[in-house]
Amino acid sequence: MTNRIREFLRTRRDDGPCVVVDLDVVRDNYLTFAKALPDTRVFYAVKANPAYEILELLAKLGSCFDCASLGEIEEVLATGATADRISFGNTIKKERDIEKAYERGVRLFAVDCEAEVDKVARVAPGSKVFCRILADGKDAEWPLSRKFGCEPAMAPRVLEHAHRHGLVAYGVSFHVGSQQRNPQAWDSALESAAWIFREMQDRGITLSMVNLGGGFPTKYLKEIPGVPSYGQAIFASLRKHFGNRIPETIIEPGRGMVGNAGIIETEVVLVSKKSDTDKVRWLYLDIGKFHGLAETMDEAIRYPIRTPRDGDDLEAFIIAGPTCDSVDVLYEKEPYMLPFSVEIGDKLLIEGTGAYTTTYSSQNFNGIPGLKQYVI
Amino acid sequence: MTNRIREFLRTRRDDGPCVVVDLDVVRDNYLTFAKALPDTRVFYAVKANPAYEILELLAKLGSCFDCASLGEIEEVLATGATADRISFGNTIKKERDIEKAYERGVRLFAVDCEAEVDKVARVAPGSKVFCRILADGKDAEWPLSRKFGCEPAMAPRVLEHAHRHGLVAYGVSFHVGSQQRNPQAWDSALESAAWIFREMQDRGITLSMVNLGGGFPTKYLKEIPGVPSYGQAIFASLRKHFGNRIPETIIEPGRGMVGNAGIIETEVVLVSKKSDTDKVRWLYLDIGKFHGLAETMDEAIRYPIRTPRDGDDLEAFIIAGPTCDSVDVLYEKEPYMLPFSVEIGDKLLIEGTGAYTTTYSSQNFNGIPGLKQYVI
Repeated sequence: MTNRIREFLRTRRDDGPCVVVDLDVVRDNYLTFAKALPDTRVFYAVKANPAYEILELLAKLGSCFDCASLGEIEEVLATGATADRISFGNTIKKERDIEKAYERGVRLFAVDCEAEVDKVARVAPGSKVFCRILADGKDAEWPLSRKFGCEPAMAPRVLEHAHRHGLVAYGVSFHVGSQQRNPQAWDSALESAAWIFREMQDRGITLSMVNLGGGFPTKYLKEIPGVPSYGQAIFASLRKHFGNRIPETIIEPGRGMVGNAGIIETEVVLVSKKSDTDKVRWLYLDIGKFHGLAETMDEAIRYPIRTPRDGDDLEAFIIAGPTCDSVDVLYEKEPYMLPFSVEIGDKLLIEGTGAYTTTYSSQNFNGIPGLKQYVI
Repeated sequence: MTNRIREFLRTRRDDGPCVVVDLDVVRDNYLTFAKALPDTRVFYAVKANPAYEILELLAKLGSCFDCASLGEIEEVLATGATADRISFGNTIKKERDIEKAYERGVRLFAVDCEAEVDKVARVAPGSKVFCRILADGKDAEWPLSRKFGCEPAMAPRVLEHAHRHGLVAYGVSFHVGSQQRNPQAWDSALESAAWIFREMQDRGITLSMVNLGGGFPTKYLKEIPGVPSYGQAIFASLRKHFGNRIPETIIEPGRGMVGNAGIIETEVVLVSKKSDTDKVRWLYLDIGKFHGLAETMDEAIRYPIRTPRDGDDLEAFIIAGPTCDSVDVLYEKEPYMLPFSVEIGDKLLIEGTGAYTTTYSSQNFNGIPGLKQYVI
C-alpha cells in the first residue's frame, strides 16, 4: 500500500470496485530489474497489464516489450515506442498477424515448431526467430503446461529449418513458470539452452540470444526472494553452462513488474451462515473470479487482504464473489483469516493486484462491468 | 447447426472468431418450455446471454426474467418489458442496488439469510421475497457449491423474519445444478420445499411459490432427456409432495433457452508436436478459455466440434486457445477426436455455444478482443 494509492482512494468519488496502480512502484521495479541483471534487456510482458500509462512509462525508461498479439503490438506502438523494441513472443500466431506485425516493423518472433517457422518465413522474411523449449515449471505457483515450447532435442531442427528458409536463427527461450519462487529454477533450462547453442554451432549456425522468460514473483502472502538473488543465480548458471561465451540475454517480467504496484478496493456485500451449526461464515465481495480475481483459481494465489478492522481477533471465512455462479468462490478449501468483526459495507483492500486482474476480467458477466482501473 | 446460421457464416465478411445465435431456436425453446410446464412461468436467466435481441424476443413471447444485478435489470427494462416480470434472483445484493431496483418497480427478491432480508426490508418495503435453499446438485455437469442458499431447516426462520419486517414471505427457491441430466433431480428439493411450506403454515404464514430454478440441459456431446420428461418428472414430484395444494411455480432456464441456439466459428491457428515421439498433436484455435470457452474448465463440458474435413479418419488432439497463458487449454486430460487431416486455417464450428460464452469472455486478455456475437 503506497501513500499515493491511499490518498487517491480517500478522495475518490466513483462508486464500485476498482484497481489502482501506482506508477512510482512500476518505475522502481523496472530499475530494480535493470540493476539486478545489468547486461540483460527487459521485455515487459504486456499481457500482465496493458494500461497505456504503464506502457508509456516503461517506453520512456527504455524498456522493450513482449507482445502476445497484434493488438498488444499496436498498443505498444501507440505509446511511441519503436518496433525494434518489440518481440512477438506468442508461439501461436495467425500468418496474417505475423504479416501485419512485419509491416509495422517487428522483426523478432517466437516459434516452437516448423509449421510456425514456415509462416514467419513466408510473410516476415529475414526476421529473427527464437525457439521456445519446454521447461518443467517446478516450484511455480502458477505452473505451465506443455502448451508452449518443444522438447529441447527438437529445437535444433526447428532452428535449422528457420535458417534454411531465410530467417535468422537467433536463440532459445523458455519459461520457468509464473510466480516462480526458486531462483535456481533457471539452471536446468539454461543447461538445455547451452546444449542447443553447441548443437547449432556444430551445424554451422551461431545462435546469439537466450530469452530467460518471466516467472519473477511478486509478493503475496508468502515471502519471496528479492530480484537481486534471481539475478545472481541466473548469472551463475549462465557462467556454468556457457563459460566465457555468455550470450545476449533478455527477460520478460510481467507480474514482477506490475503485480505489487496495484491494489484492489472492494466492498463486503454480505456476511452469512448456511445453517445454525456452520462453523465458518461466508463473506461475499462485490468482485470475484470473473471481475479481476481469476488467479484465485484452485486457490493458487492468496492475496493479502486489509480491512478497516485489522487488529481485531481473526476468524476463518469462505470468501466468494457477487455473481450467480457457483464457481465464483475465491477461498473455500482453505478459508481465509479475517477480523471476526468485518461487516456488510466494509471496504477491503486486496494487495498485489496490479497484474492479471483487469485483463482477466470478463466484459459484463452477470451484468457487472469489467474491473475499473486507475493508473496514478 | 441451422440453415440460417450456415447462410450467415457463408456470406459474412468480418474476420475473426464469433458466435452466431439463431433467434428461431430461442423461440422454439421458449415454446417448448411453456408447453412442457404449462402452469409454470418462465423467468429467463439473463446471465446466460444478455443480448438485446434475445431479451426483446423473449419479452414479446411473454417471458419473465431472472436478473443477477441492477445492470441486468436495466438491460431487461430497455426492451420494454415491465418490472413486474423481473425477479432480482441473486442472493448477494448491495442495499443501494436493491433500492434502485425497487425504484424501477421490481418487487420480487431472492434471499438466503436474515442479513439479506434486512436490506430488502429497509429499502424495498412490502416486496415479495423467496428463500433459496441448498440442493445437492448431484448429476449436474456444472455442479453448484454451497455458495447460494441456506440449509432447508434454516429457511422458515429467514422467511418468518421477512414476514415480521413487512415483507411478503412468498416462497422457496433452489437450483439442482446447471446442465442437470437427471429429470428426477428436483424431487428431494421439492420434498424440502413442501416441508418448509407446512412449517410456515404452522406459524400462520402461507407461502405461495416454488421457484424450480434452472439446470435444464442443452445438448453437447452426450444425449440428454427432452424438456417434456423434465416437465413430467417435476409435476409428479409436485403432486407427491404438495398433494392437492400445488403452489405457483416458476423456472429459470438459461442454458436450456439459448445454449443450442448458438454456434461459434473459430480458426485453426497451429497444429504441432512437442517432440518427435509425441503420439498426440496439439491443435490451437483463435479463441479459448478466455474468449468464450470458459466452460471447458476442468473439461466439464465437451462441445461438439464440426470441421470441413468430417468423414476423414479420426485422431486424438489436445485442443488449446491462442493466448500466452498455460491454463488456456480446452481438452488435454481427455484429448478430443478430430479428423487427422485438419490444417492451419481451417474453420471449425463449435456447437451449443449460445449460453455462457460472450459473457464469460475477458475484455481484452492478451490484446485479443472479447468474443463477437451476431444475433440473427
